[in-house]
Amino acid sequence: MPKIVDHNKQKEKLAVATWRVIRRDGLERASLRNIAKEAGLSVGSMRHYFSTQSELLAFSMQLVSDRVCDRLQSFVPSGNLMEDVLHVLCEMLPIDEERSTEMEVWFAFTSKALVDPTLQALSLYVYDDMKGFIAKKVEQLIEQHSAGSRLDVNLETERLFALIDGLAIHAIMHPERLVPEQARAVLIYHLQSIFKL
Amino acid sequence: MPKIVDHNKQKEKLAVATWRVIRRDGLERASLRNIAKEAGLSVGSMRHYFSTQSELLAFSMQLVSDRVCDRLQSFVPSGNLMEDVLHVLCEMLPIDEERSTEMEVWFAFTSKALVDPTLQALSLYVYDDMKGFIAKKVEQLIEQHSAGSRLDVNLETERLFALIDGLAIHAIMHPERLVPEQARAVLIYHLQSIFKL
Repeated sequence: MPKIVDHNKQKEKLAVATWRVIRRDGLERASLRNIAKEAGLSVGSMRHYFSTQSELLAFSMQLVSDRVCDRLQSFVPSGNLMEDVLHVLCEMLPIDEERSTEMEVWFAFTSKALVDPTLQALSLYVYDDMKGFIAKKVEQLIEQHSAGSRLDVNLETERLFALIDGLAIHAIMHPERLVPEQARAVLIYHLQSIFKL
Repeated sequence: MPKIVDHNKQKEKLAVATWRVIRRDGLERASLRNIAKEAGLSVGSMRHYFSTQSELLAFSMQLVSDRVCDRLQSFVPSGNLMEDVLHVLCEMLPIDEERSTEMEVWFAFTSKALVDPTLQALSLYVYDDMKGFIAKKVEQLIEQHSAGSRLDVNLETERLFALIDGLAIHAIMHPERLVPEQARAVLIYHLQSIFKL
């Protein structure tokens, strides 16, 4: 099915062009016309892939989530639970250029989701997915490191999830104030304080 | 100076109209024309107060920060440090309609700040201000509640600050998942876990 593959690849290329425009000029400039120009396509060819701006934005937002999921799924655990948990949680922090790009555009999409029901539904889906993922890690850590202690899984999950998103936003907004190593250090400090490592 | 007072009051009224438009339609709709219409003014009269959209947005963003600061400054401490800290930190969470409005628009401004240097400078100023405020509270709590324990003020400050902003974003984005009482409960749990209350 080479045609379908090409079609999807082209859609991804357009989504990445959308990210570039959002990152450089802001989401309000991410019109079909501007994205077509950025990608070197005519608006007519563009409509072959996305007929509305809303469709293009939803696909571009979904692609951020897909990229993170792909990396999480292809991760091979080392067997050291704490190291592995740190590794996967750092996939949710802007610790390098690739992740910074993804998170900056995710942040822009999230803000628009407040007034766009399609993006809001996607945002909620990813929120639930991430929270479930973090809950599983918290359960594993409690089981392995804190036998006998009275940790509340729900509160610990909400706390860790909010901490990660808060660190991510601070690092994106003010990289001169919170560099990746510091964000990582806060995360390690947090896990160590709970799981007494 | 009744004229100056009126002028400032009118600017605040326009800023609040800007918040309404942002909350309902998104920041990309916050043009001078749309805000004038929302406030029941002509675009001509509008320009008497703000000559550019950028000026209006910066003023409207600043007003969010001013409102929070006003509440913090007018707060009369009860004398119970932990209760007082909780009270002031909850000023940074969307625990009621007023605070939710402020935080939703703040979130929209923050996202635009990534591509708008004026808003970015304001965002950084408020970031530093809030972080300094939180650092002071952490120091007071350590002094009063944790004599002898080895808490790291900088890490605890960054952790608490990120936690608050993460909780705020989750509560704004998905109020059906994180209600105000839960956000407050996570914050109490966090402070208790550190300061052994």
